[in-house]
Amino acid sequence: MKKIIFLFLLLDFLVGWAESNSQKSNLRFPFDLPKGNGAWIRRPSIGQIWPQPQLQQSTNNFMVLRPNDFKFQITGNTCDILEEAVHRYYDLIFFPSKGSGTSKRFLKLAKKYRSTWEQNEHFRGYLDTVALHVMQPCETLPSLDMDEHYEIKIDATDKPREGIILSQSVWGILRGLESFSQLVYASQNGIAFQINSTMVMDFPRFPHRGLLLDSSRHFLPLEIIKDNLDLMAQNKMNVFHWHITDDPSFPYESRKFPSLSQLGSFSQYSHVYSPSDVQNIIQYARMRGIRVIPEFDTPGHTQSWGPGFPGLLTRCYKKDGTEDDFFGPINPVPARNFKFLKEFFAETFEVFPDAYVHLGGDEVDFSCWASNPEINSFMKSQGWGQDFARLEQFYMQRLINVTQDVTKGGMRYLVWQEVIDNNVVLPTDTVIHVWKDGNKFHDELARVTKFGYRTVLSSPWYLNYINYGVDWDRYYVAEPLAFNGTESQKRLVIGGEACMWGEYIDAVSVTSATWPRASAVAERLWSNANINDPRLAAPRLEEHRCRLLRRGFSVNPINGVSYCDVEW
Amino acid sequence: MKKIIFLFLLLDFLVGWAESNSQKSNLRFPFDLPKGNGAWIRRPSIGQIWPQPQLQQSTNNFMVLRPNDFKFQITGNTCDILEEAVHRYYDLIFFPSKGSGTSKRFLKLAKKYRSTWEQNEHFRGYLDTVALHVMQPCETLPSLDMDEHYEIKIDATDKPREGIILSQSVWGILRGLESFSQLVYASQNGIAFQINSTMVMDFPRFPHRGLLLDSSRHFLPLEIIKDNLDLMAQNKMNVFHWHITDDPSFPYESRKFPSLSQLGSFSQYSHVYSPSDVQNIIQYARMRGIRVIPEFDTPGHTQSWGPGFPGLLTRCYKKDGTEDDFFGPINPVPARNFKFLKEFFAETFEVFPDAYVHLGGDEVDFSCWASNPEINSFMKSQGWGQDFARLEQFYMQRLINVTQDVTKGGMRYLVWQEVIDNNVVLPTDTVIHVWKDGNKFHDELARVTKFGYRTVLSSPWYLNYINYGVDWDRYYVAEPLAFNGTESQKRLVIGGEACMWGEYIDAVSVTSATWPRASAVAERLWSNANINDPRLAAPRLEEHRCRLLRRGFSVNPINGVSYCDVEW
Repeated sequence: MKKIIFLFLLLDFLVGWAESNSQKSNLRFPFDLPKGNGAWIRRPSIGQIWPQPQLQQSTNNFMVLRPNDFKFQITGNTCDILEEAVHRYYDLIFFPSKGSGTSKRFLKLAKKYRSTWEQNEHFRGYLDTVALHVMQPCETLPSLDMDEHYEIKIDATDKPREGIILSQSVWGILRGLESFSQLVYASQNGIAFQINSTMVMDFPRFPHRGLLLDSSRHFLPLEIIKDNLDLMAQNKMNVFHWHITDDPSFPYESRKFPSLSQLGSFSQYSHVYSPSDVQNIIQYARMRGIRVIPEFDTPGHTQSWGPGFPGLLTRCYKKDGTEDDFFGPINPVPARNFKFLKEFFAETFEVFPDAYVHLGGDEVDFSCWASNPEINSFMKSQGWGQDFARLEQFYMQRLINVTQDVTKGGMRYLVWQEVIDNNVVLPTDTVIHVWKDGNKFHDELARVTKFGYRTVLSSPWYLNYINYGVDWDRYYVAEPLAFNGTESQKRLVIGGEACMWGEYIDAVSVTSATWPRASAVAERLWSNANINDPRLAAPRLEEHRCRLLRRGFSVNPINGVSYCDVEW
Repeated sequence: MKKIIFLFLLLDFLVGWAESNSQKSNLRFPFDLPKGNGAWIRRPSIGQIWPQPQLQQSTNNFMVLRPNDFKFQITGNTCDILEEAVHRYYDLIFFPSKGSGTSKRFLKLAKKYRSTWEQNEHFRGYLDTVALHVMQPCETLPSLDMDEHYEIKIDATDKPREGIILSQSVWGILRGLESFSQLVYASQNGIAFQINSTMVMDFPRFPHRGLLLDSSRHFLPLEIIKDNLDLMAQNKMNVFHWHITDDPSFPYESRKFPSLSQLGSFSQYSHVYSPSDVQNIIQYARMRGIRVIPEFDTPGHTQSWGPGFPGLLTRCYKKDGTEDDFFGPINPVPARNFKFLKEFFAETFEVFPDAYVHLGGDEVDFSCWASNPEINSFMKSQGWGQDFARLEQFYMQRLINVTQDVTKGGMRYLVWQEVIDNNVVLPTDTVIHVWKDGNKFHDELARVTKFGYRTVLSSPWYLNYINYGVDWDRYYVAEPLAFNGTESQKRLVIGGEACMWGEYIDAVSVTSATWPRASAVAERLWSNANINDPRLAAPRLEEHRCRLLRRGFSVNPINGVSYCDVEW
């Protein structure tokens, strides 16, 4: 049904388009470039959308937006998400940099210099209204199944001149608003907001387009996470994978088990996420159509859980059989530990509204388990010998059982690939997160999908491994579906995630280290598979970087020598 | 004479010290660490100085500084540099982060919690006055010969309690104030500024301790350069090597040749340094005891000079003998070009007060020269065949001649190592800048010093080559004097510079990419050669990083997993 409506709109769109636009071409800048602009530097594109839409046509004809006259008009269904977005995108277009005073300058000069655009042969008048039309009632929560299709029509020949952004869902309108805001560009003299006649028909290639941030190895303040949520929305990413705990610190404040963060955080006063902080993040993400999937990684990567729940971690033993000072992964033998995990995950299921939680399961170090007498006698009683993968399997299985039990089957899972590599039997709707083997990940994707599991890919997108020089192109060309498998296997690949692990970055540099390198991943996961030439993408990415910078985010230069009109 | 005075003071110091302090030890924190502080994380040091002083002794006895009562008292000579420094360091100590409100919190809580330190067995009262004593009249300008020795005495047994910072010169007092500000640390509960009984006798190992920033490949706004000057001062670096022009852009506004920046900058309106901007930087640096040495790199690295002075660059020719669209290095044949260079450098000699200018001279590409008929016939007339190193030698020699001429012998030079490698005869006080061969630079140092030239080293300190993981230790262990040479050769090594070339960084990331990695270089160049164990330095560098962060600078984490009390 949805598809039929879209087809209809698209036909209408294209017919109207063909009639009203005689002169078609790629976007080109209507004014000549002045001298003194480092002509030997490759110029960024102008008014191009990142990630590239599935279908777009534009002409040289342009209209001008005036901050005092322009408005978005909600013509279909509405809700808090849409109404907040209207204000947000109005500001993003006209007041990109908080407190920069740009807009005042615009307002002052716009009248004076009106002739500079009004005399241009491609000027077609003023665009004062863009209709936002949501066809279905708004959903409250973004989800894996959300519909992100949208269409934009900005036609300089319409009378009265009006644009429209159209979608079945509020999520599609959010994506459309982002695209619209990117279509608006400043005239060369910086005093007019212009938009070319454009039609867009757009939808994502993959439904799961994520960014992993790690708030355990270094603490990430709330404002930094919010900046990254903004940047995700501005790159049409829709999953914030919050790797919230790990060995170094436990910043998540649990209501039922407050001692976990009291004793496991870097500082219980300043380096924790309170329940209201967590809700703040979830709400901020929801308003941008972004899901928050928390990861409470177990049974490894749990050193910071130890102080707050004594007995949870496995005591390691020396070779002479005496107790060591170290602890290993969670001890899977005591029933008490699973009672704790059951209650803990019952709470997270209440706190985080998304259906999915990431259970981790990666990099379990068996050596401490192997040193522990209690675990050895349990292994013996089970007849597992020294096969500790069986013990890991036992742990994950039991963890899934208790969480299914306490959530009445409502909890769904992502797990790192080791869990399936170790033959744990998982609910069929579990998503396997493939992360190993750098650029040689295709075999694992084939394997996981052969088992019938859905999968998300991160192997080629570990952005924390920084490099000297240009490196976004290698993220850009990594193609998830280039593995040997059937069509139905490939349909099980639901997307991917860029990962920014926190060993060597913190609030100072997480944003500039992540962006716009993650933008390369965003386009791979949103745009058509054949949009994969870094040389064609480079000028658009250059523009996108300057755009994000202008919007007030500390994003790095990406293509070597370059400059932006507005620097940091 | 100077040395005798210092010796006397030192003796007085040590005698007084021995009498008044019965209990000596390394600095230790007087309060217990609370739980909930990620005990598995290596703790930074507390109240330690970076770079490490030549001589320091401290005890556990401490005093408390009260913002409302504390003052610096100028007891010797004074001048604008000293008076501004007094205000700056008062603020740095008590109001480290602009607008953070820290100090208000301190003032409010300090009275309430006074007992937490007054009952401590090591508390010795309040330090309300620190005398600043400059023994010689202030110099106006920092120079290669400036005296940076200083002494600090903070003795909790003095009555009335008074500290002193003592130096022959205002430059020494600046270094002493920085050390003093680092000795002050916050009590664990964050409400008292404490300082332990401490004596310091300190001076730099090398007189030239620099940082190169590149404002051509990406433009660096004034505020960013100033931040880096602050950071240099806070690491006792004293030379800002301003690589101001290069191929990509010419942001330096020349009064005599304004077309150079008008046509050679990224944008003549927003991406240039006006004459007043340049004076602003020089003044800001001077106040911090930092020399500004501009580099106008010629004859290569000059693409951006071309549009503003047609005929300056060598026209390249195709193999078929027709003109190409490209230009090469400066054309050394036309006399008109040296007339231009003479006038241009005459201006820079006026603009930049330091005696030294960096003439560049690196990486001259001979292929364009070789393609050009005018140059070929000149080579023929000189009988140089195809030995273009002779042409480069000719260019540099003549450049030095015209600049010596116009500055009446007043201009002194730094040049990159190629200039000496190509056998140019240089004034004996020229400084050779060694930059090639990464960590295998020792042969070149031996060679250059054998010729009798002084030298500064950058080879092991190209910080722009970023790496994943901890890398400051490799900068830290690079030892300039570990080459085969006589003592007098080694005395010709006057220091080094950390280089942050601008290909892949700009205002967004230059500060976080440079610091605190450059701090490792700063300690190598300031502290005793035997202070060279990264394991011992790590906790101090960790503290220093948190200190710089608290002072409001975006400096990266440096040792992996960590946290600071005040995050970005």
